[in-house]
Amino acid sequence: MIQDNGNILKLRKLGIDTHTENIIFLRADSQVCRSEGFTANTRVSVNSGNHSIIATLNVITSEIIDDGEAVLSEEGFKNLNVQEGDLITVTHLQPILSFSNVRAKMFGKKFNENAIIRIISDITKGLYSKIEIAAFVTVCSGDNLALDEVIYLTKAMVNSGSRLTWDSKMIMDKHCVGGLPGNRTTPIVVPIVAAAGLIIPKTSSRAITSPAGTADVIETMTPVDLTLKQIKEVVRKENGCMTWGGAVKLSPVDDIIISVEKALDVDSAGQMIASVISKKVAAGSTHTIIDIPVGPTAKVRSKEEAFLLEYYFKAVGLSIGMEVEVLITDGSQPVGRGIGPALEAMDVLAVLRNEPDAPADLKDRAVQLASLMLERAGVTPKGEGVNRALEILDSGQALDKFYRICHAQGGFSEPAPAMLHHDVTALTSGYVKSVDNRKLAKVAKLAGAPKSPGAGIFFRAKIGKYIQKGDPLYTIYSETQGELSYALTFLHSSDHIVELTPA
Amino acid sequence: MIQDNGNILKLRKLGIDTHTENIIFLRADSQVCRSEGFTANTRVSVNSGNHSIIATLNVITSEIIDDGEAVLSEEGFKNLNVQEGDLITVTHLQPILSFSNVRAKMFGKKFNENAIIRIISDITKGLYSKIEIAAFVTVCSGDNLALDEVIYLTKAMVNSGSRLTWDSKMIMDKHCVGGLPGNRTTPIVVPIVAAAGLIIPKTSSRAITSPAGTADVIETMTPVDLTLKQIKEVVRKENGCMTWGGAVKLSPVDDIIISVEKALDVDSAGQMIASVISKKVAAGSTHTIIDIPVGPTAKVRSKEEAFLLEYYFKAVGLSIGMEVEVLITDGSQPVGRGIGPALEAMDVLAVLRNEPDAPADLKDRAVQLASLMLERAGVTPKGEGVNRALEILDSGQALDKFYRICHAQGGFSEPAPAMLHHDVTALTSGYVKSVDNRKLAKVAKLAGAPKSPGAGIFFRAKIGKYIQKGDPLYTIYSETQGELSYALTFLHSSDHIVELTPA
Repeated sequence: MIQDNGNILKLRKLGIDTHTENIIFLRADSQVCRSEGFTANTRVSVNSGNHSIIATLNVITSEIIDDGEAVLSEEGFKNLNVQEGDLITVTHLQPILSFSNVRAKMFGKKFNENAIIRIISDITKGLYSKIEIAAFVTVCSGDNLALDEVIYLTKAMVNSGSRLTWDSKMIMDKHCVGGLPGNRTTPIVVPIVAAAGLIIPKTSSRAITSPAGTADVIETMTPVDLTLKQIKEVVRKENGCMTWGGAVKLSPVDDIIISVEKALDVDSAGQMIASVISKKVAAGSTHTIIDIPVGPTAKVRSKEEAFLLEYYFKAVGLSIGMEVEVLITDGSQPVGRGIGPALEAMDVLAVLRNEPDAPADLKDRAVQLASLMLERAGVTPKGEGVNRALEILDSGQALDKFYRICHAQGGFSEPAPAMLHHDVTALTSGYVKSVDNRKLAKVAKLAGAPKSPGAGIFFRAKIGKYIQKGDPLYTIYSETQGELSYALTFLHSSDHIVELTPA
Repeated sequence: MIQDNGNILKLRKLGIDTHTENIIFLRADSQVCRSEGFTANTRVSVNSGNHSIIATLNVITSEIIDDGEAVLSEEGFKNLNVQEGDLITVTHLQPILSFSNVRAKMFGKKFNENAIIRIISDITKGLYSKIEIAAFVTVCSGDNLALDEVIYLTKAMVNSGSRLTWDSKMIMDKHCVGGLPGNRTTPIVVPIVAAAGLIIPKTSSRAITSPAGTADVIETMTPVDLTLKQIKEVVRKENGCMTWGGAVKLSPVDDIIISVEKALDVDSAGQMIASVISKKVAAGSTHTIIDIPVGPTAKVRSKEEAFLLEYYFKAVGLSIGMEVEVLITDGSQPVGRGIGPALEAMDVLAVLRNEPDAPADLKDRAVQLASLMLERAGVTPKGEGVNRALEILDSGQALDKFYRICHAQGGFSEPAPAMLHHDVTALTSGYVKSVDNRKLAKVAKLAGAPKSPGAGIFFRAKIGKYIQKGDPLYTIYSETQGELSYALTFLHSSDHIVELTPA
């Protein structure tokens, strides 16, 4: 067998940050490019000792590097675990066999279990380019995955990462399918349930296509980037935690896939179910409550769609040994007043602190979810969960537990909105008739959320409220003038977000 | 309306070639990144005077550029039409509205005509990133496009580029749906038909996923990179031409889409029909013959599939005012002996020169196609096309016309195979039972075709031939040792490509 001859190159660092992509820069006229036939955009294997990574080649025609040198993007240095001055070789990539299954799926062939295992394993290893992942995301989108395919995907994703184990027999968890701005119940439910003595090691994700993920919101109050060992310690002390799932590599392939879904601004039902259930199973959960908000501009738009998701969630949970309960909730307008990490955190604290103007809708949802957990776990008889949850909340036990968890995670800090703000006011008087969640979320995102934690929207126009002409409907917060003007440009070019009925 | 404040940056050139992608490099700590909230992988608008391009941001954390400087990839310099030292501004990108139609298609919604027009227009303008194009290609793949969607796509693609007009009422054209190595009839059909007095301004494409496209093959003998004006002149003189379609921007969006299809190694039926018909219409053709080879390892695997394609081709042709005739041919094994640009060109010349060992199968196909054109155009009565085509070929008129066309295009040169070669020999004796076209094509591609014009395969094992143990089945040609060893590595890890029946 003829081997590729080792073209040894010396690494240089130019500090090029390409986000999550490995890029290697070589001279176009270098010996390695000529002898191996490499050209711009070739996908290559970059090898150092026993390690290798896949990288995309950019060729350089200027003198900034020499023939025998190679530059890696910062991500490449990290992933290959090398330093400036180290020696590497660059070789041709073997064809990725599992992609032929993605191609077959484009042509209507179903995935079998082996195909999914190989695809997920190859994506986890970084073998897929972004455009290959985009094709995979697209074939999985909409209702293109059947139940068995979702089950295979879920199992493959669980096996792609670490897995938590606990001493208790019952491990509680919750998840909201999202799409509803401000629906931030987790930091209220966790302390209630933990204060009631149940174990709830909650890991959350960051925003995919929304202006704030739960982890983004909690991070404005306490560190969420905890190791497995730290999570175990927090839960041992306080019964619960509120951390970022991505930091502990539960289903790490999910984060790779999500980064492409985010760029495409696409969610896929099958992918979403696999993502949720795999993370819960990897976190060691035995009982999970799924919150599905339904509304014309929520992620789930009809009851029928919600019932179908319920079926998938329960069936996939069953196949993998986890009890799943679904709560279908109202998704016609934002929950609370804040949209964006810090602004939502302020709502959460208002509820926990029993402030007089605390948003009642947020409190009510959190109590419903906590109540369901207390009843399922047998802490209270059926029908008495709500009273018990309210008791824990109203008495300040939940707030106390919340602070304790924050301190165990590394401390508490008060969230604050961004410096720049702009009021959007009503052009006429009237009662609020409807709210476009999607456009509202888009404005918050354009204003900088979740990247800028203080950015977003403070919303004042709940459905049914009477608004006087000139009154603020909502306030946009932003940390830079560029982002604020970006949000306003979209607003001016868009239809009304809040619809008023003449009084 | 608040405007983005112009952050003026000075361009520097580092000679970074990123193939077809616009990349801009900025300092992570630069004023523009901080004030606009730009991070790695943000898609931004880069503006100079009245021009702007969309680029992907890579941020740099080292000192190779200053705060007020920006580096563009070579592609970016070309597309924005700027020089080192020029001043630019970098601003946020408006959301791409047409991508919401791609998203809707993922969820099963059909494209309407407006959606397709907007998508194709945005892709033509360079607004889509590679992963967005990958998602578009994927939703169009397999049989996901209905007839009306293919018609919209075809019309939108015609309108995306230039269009040729001719004085003659009848303009002949041909196309092969490919997938069959060595099926290089164009450079034989064009001179026969042109010698018979018909007008055939043939533009061909380069390889998409195959080891050679017709333009790649012809380029080993004569220049194919002609302008519209040059094509007109060649056709005026000689009745026909054999050039590369990409050079004249007929349906330019097709080339952008094809570059992603190539990276995914995916062909889509609807996309392919739109691509073929739009280029023919843009080239001004009135009569087109489509060659569809059918075989177990050809691109089209069954007669049923071929009949369905025939229906689509004819129906789309009809809707757009072009007469389409389909010829379904044998696709069970390679045509001729060469696979790869120069090796296929050598077969073409052997047929045109009436050499005794010229491949009879290639000659036969070319004659069939030419005959159909002569009959459709009324040059000969029905049933006499084959004799007339053979007469033109055997008499040397076709060879003479071929040389004349080459000279009009810029000269003729003799094609030659690559320097390195390796014989693959039979391990047993027997008759050739079957040939795997796909694997054969893959070996030729790994050996460097079509990038290295002399690379590829000389094939010696036609179905039914008796092969002695130790005899060469085929010879692999390569221009670099790296590519030859890559092809051999694949060969050793793969099943048999040529199957023998024991004698």
